Amino acid sequence: MSKSVQELATYVGGKVIGDANLRIDGITNLEAPQPGFITFAQDPKSFQKLEASSIACLIVTPEISQSSKTLIQVASPKLAWAKLLRLFFPVPQLHPSVSDKAFVAKTAKIGKEVTIEPFVTVSDGAVIGDHCILRSHVFVGENVVIGDNAFLHPNVVIYRDCSIGKRVIIHAGTVIGADGFGYVATAQGQEKVPQVGNVIIEEDVELGASVTIDRATIGSTKIGKGCKLDNLVQVAHNVEIGMHTVISAQTGISGSCRIGNYVTMGGKVGVGDHVEIGDWVMVGAGAGLPTGKKIPARQIVFGQPARPYQEARKQIGAQLRAAETYEELKALRKKVTALEGRMQESGLEPLK
Amino acid sequence: MSKSVQELATYVGGKVIGDANLRIDGITNLEAPQPGFITFAQDPKSFQKLEASSIACLIVTPEISQSSKTLIQVASPKLAWAKLLRLFFPVPQLHPSVSDKAFVAKTAKIGKEVTIEPFVTVSDGAVIGDHCILRSHVFVGENVVIGDNAFLHPNVVIYRDCSIGKRVIIHAGTVIGADGFGYVATAQGQEKVPQVGNVIIEEDVELGASVTIDRATIGSTKIGKGCKLDNLVQVAHNVEIGMHTVISAQTGISGSCRIGNYVTMGGKVGVGDHVEIGDWVMVGAGAGLPTGKKIPARQIVFGQPARPYQEARKQIGAQLRAAETYEELKALRKKVTALEGRMQESGLEPLK
Amino acid sequence: MSKSVQELATYVGGKVIGDANLRIDGITNLEAPQPGFITFAQDPKSFQKLEASSIACLIVTPEISQSSKTLIQVASPKLAWAKLLRLFFPVPQLHPSVSDKAFVAKTAKIGKEVTIEPFVTVSDGAVIGDHCILRSHVFVGENVVIGDNAFLHPNVVIYRDCSIGKRVIIHAGTVIGADGFGYVATAQGQEKVPQVGNVIIEEDVELGASVTIDRATIGSTKIGKGCKLDNLVQVAHNVEIGMHTVISAQTGISGSCRIGNYVTMGGKVGVGDHVEIGDWVMVGAGAGLPTGKKIPARQIVFGQPARPYQEARKQIGAQLRAAETYEELKALRKKVTALEGRMQESGLEPLK
Repeated sequence: MSKSVQELATYVGGKVIGDANLRIDGITNLEAPQPGFITFAQDPKSFQKLEASSIACLIVTPEISQSSKTLIQVASPKLAWAKLLRLFFPVPQLHPSVSDKAFVAKTAKIGKEVTIEPFVTVSDGAVIGDHCILRSHVFVGENVVIGDNAFLHPNVVIYRDCSIGKRVIIHAGTVIGADGFGYVATAQGQEKVPQVGNVIIEEDVELGASVTIDRATIGSTKIGKGCKLDNLVQVAHNVEIGMHTVISAQTGISGSCRIGNYVTMGGKVGVGDHVEIGDWVMVGAGAGLPTGKKIPARQIVFGQPARPYQEARKQIGAQLRAAETYEELKALRKKVTALEGRMQESGLEPLK
Repeated sequence: MSKSVQELATYVGGKVIGDANLRIDGITNLEAPQPGFITFAQDPKSFQKLEASSIACLIVTPEISQSSKTLIQVASPKLAWAKLLRLFFPVPQLHPSVSDKAFVAKTAKIGKEVTIEPFVTVSDGAVIGDHCILRSHVFVGENVVIGDNAFLHPNVVIYRDCSIGKRVIIHAGTVIGADGFGYVATAQGQEKVPQVGNVIIEEDVELGASVTIDRATIGSTKIGKGCKLDNLVQVAHNVEIGMHTVISAQTGISGSCRIGNYVTMGGKVGVGDHVEIGDWVMVGAGAGLPTGKKIPARQIVFGQPARPYQEARKQIGAQLRAAETYEELKALRKKVTALEGRMQESGLEPLK
Repeated sequence: MSKSVQELATYVGGKVIGDANLRIDGITNLEAPQPGFITFAQDPKSFQKLEASSIACLIVTPEISQSSKTLIQVASPKLAWAKLLRLFFPVPQLHPSVSDKAFVAKTAKIGKEVTIEPFVTVSDGAVIGDHCILRSHVFVGENVVIGDNAFLHPNVVIYRDCSIGKRVIIHAGTVIGADGFGYVATAQGQEKVPQVGNVIIEEDVELGASVTIDRATIGSTKIGKGCKLDNLVQVAHNVEIGMHTVISAQTGISGSCRIGNYVTMGGKVGVGDHVEIGDWVMVGAGAGLPTGKKIPARQIVFGQPARPYQEARKQIGAQLRAAETYEELKALRKKVTALEGRMQESGLEPLK
């Protein structure tokens, strides 16, 4: 595919500085600039690196207008680049059809123009919305409802009674609605607490590969509209997550937590039971939030246990000098001992 | 469904205080009390919250007998509540049958009243006990033996030669018996150590979603009777876990560990090779146990590296004040310097 | 199976000390020695333990020649033992055939002597090399290329356009090529960045169960020749890993990292974006490497944040004494206060 800079600028609503007729043959990133291609400059450092490269055209913010390259100015260069990625690499199309190698229960309802690949199981009472794509080996449990335009990659498992919103994307191997981890300790061992609730995934959510989201004991585990969860994230029973929250890989959220809107969590965060996290909070990678912790809105926290950024930074800095601190303490003690000795030599009474 | 308080009390072996004929329409939890419903009060704080709510009936311990609600007294309110959950929400029944869309090897033996859903694979020499349920896409390897009444959720994979006990529940995506992680470093790279052992899961175990339990190099990796493992737990080759041990999500246990009976491990715990953990030990969430560590029975440990509770608490408390400690040290040093100065001014000889 | 010591020695290229005609009935490990069996002694301590056991024959280094057991001397006893494991426990053979219960797209190309089990999906344009084994429920996406002699265990998912090298082993539930985790924050929420790259797994790689390796945004995520990744490892988009690197369970590697050759990483390591790790680096279990960190070749690091071994050891040691350090500081302060008091009593002017 080849497009003129003008065509690309029009597509993303940007303004051309330079040769609008220049042909662009492909799209790339900061790491692999090449002649005839377009990419975006996120910041001045990236811009300078790209200026010195063989790239043909750069997407930049309106602040930048001087360049040896042809420029497209937009408010958000990365967003424009993301749109052009899709233009140069269109979504591969699957032909809508229900494979005769799939198993669809007689009581299931299948929408219009649905793709159901071989070896998909759709159980009794399930409802699949229009234009959904269920790739091979997807399992849809009893009475599950899946909204229009949802895309379930291979091996996704949705247990009975769960609900998946419109345009949700779920990557391979993710399990929605397995039993929450609840037992009562008895003299004979652990007695299982039945997990009779479900999971509700709202619209526009994307879940990575091998994510696990457990059903509620009673009621619903909820993932709010527009949330994005990375691979191998664990969400326990009765957790509720607000809208547009982003959670990186291998993070685990324990039972009954309340996570707000627009929260950002790094990878490998551990969140204890009943933690409450306010809107717009940022949690650093590897942080640990103890049971019952409440993080107010807009706070930035990290560390184990997690504390506000400034405090954590200060304390971690001091911890990383713990050995030196101890050496300083020993040196000071030596001095004090010497002082004591001198005072005694001077005829002052010894200290008690 | 509607039941009288007396019927519910009889079902759980409890004693009614108040109106035994009161009709109960549903069961709920502390977070969502509603009129006509029953729940349990775990502690005085929960009891007071529920007293002030619209709930109709409470399951309580015998110590509580004064209430504006109808009460059912039992020794363990949570256990009684768990039993009533099952009463109000009976286990959904699947009709036992072997799907003609499944693949069952000719040499496999299938018990009575077994449910084998579409796209299940049962390999040569496998033995499936009576009343087992194998949901879609389950893979049962060669010579695997599965005890009566086991329930395998979709996409569970059991590699060859492993053994699964009676009444075991395995959630979706869990992998039993993949090769242990063993190599010998050579000049040409890593040489694989064949993993020729197996995994033995004893009766009444429940495994969460996407758990991985590796087969032993030689011999068996063992999960003892009644153990409960949460989602995404990793158990390496040749680990042996005793009975009724409970392990929370994302915990990882390295090769050849010995974990006792009735151990409780929080989420995201990391356990190094050859660690030994005694009976009734509790390991806090996020703890790290270095290779070869031995934790005596009944100890409570947490932190990185894990230490006994009291010590860890004290040290972590002091670490969280590391910056203040350093400030105090600097202030003290200033004072000592001033003292030295004063002594010199007073005509005492300077310190060497 | 029974073999003479001489036969076993010949098989591994070793030298017999003692009775070369002794019959060996089986192979075992250090933990379970038994009469008539063979194992290896890794170190003097293991050798002494085995000397005192009922084992018949030991594989040892040439330094050891005095023993009550029959010995086989080789340069690498563990490597010889690994070879004998395979001799005593031959790889179970599957009969090459393409199941009529599999789905193979018409445009896919299948090599010679391939095993494709029931419920495997091979999508359009995929190429499967000779002697490959695809167990049940494997999903091979569009245009995927799989090299000769690859072994894909059940439920492995390879997304479109990815490439798998010769002799690669992938364990159950592993997902190759799911979308990288990339979004642009906008006023309306998170806008997805299309992930149009792929994953390249080079030859002789082994991936554990439930590993997730994301496709690149643009370009390729690469796992170099001979790498070994344990269960539940997460590799984000655009990561490149060199040759023969070994990564233990539950470790997570964030976007665009560069990991060298022969690196060893313990379990549960967290690696931030754009980290660079040199050849032969060793990263301790549970370590955390912040975004952008560069670790030079051959360094050993551990801790959170990760630091060179000697420094980390010293600082962590001091941190674990933080409470005692604080007590010492308090004691010293008391002494200084007393000193000040004494000086004043002695008629010296009070300090300002």
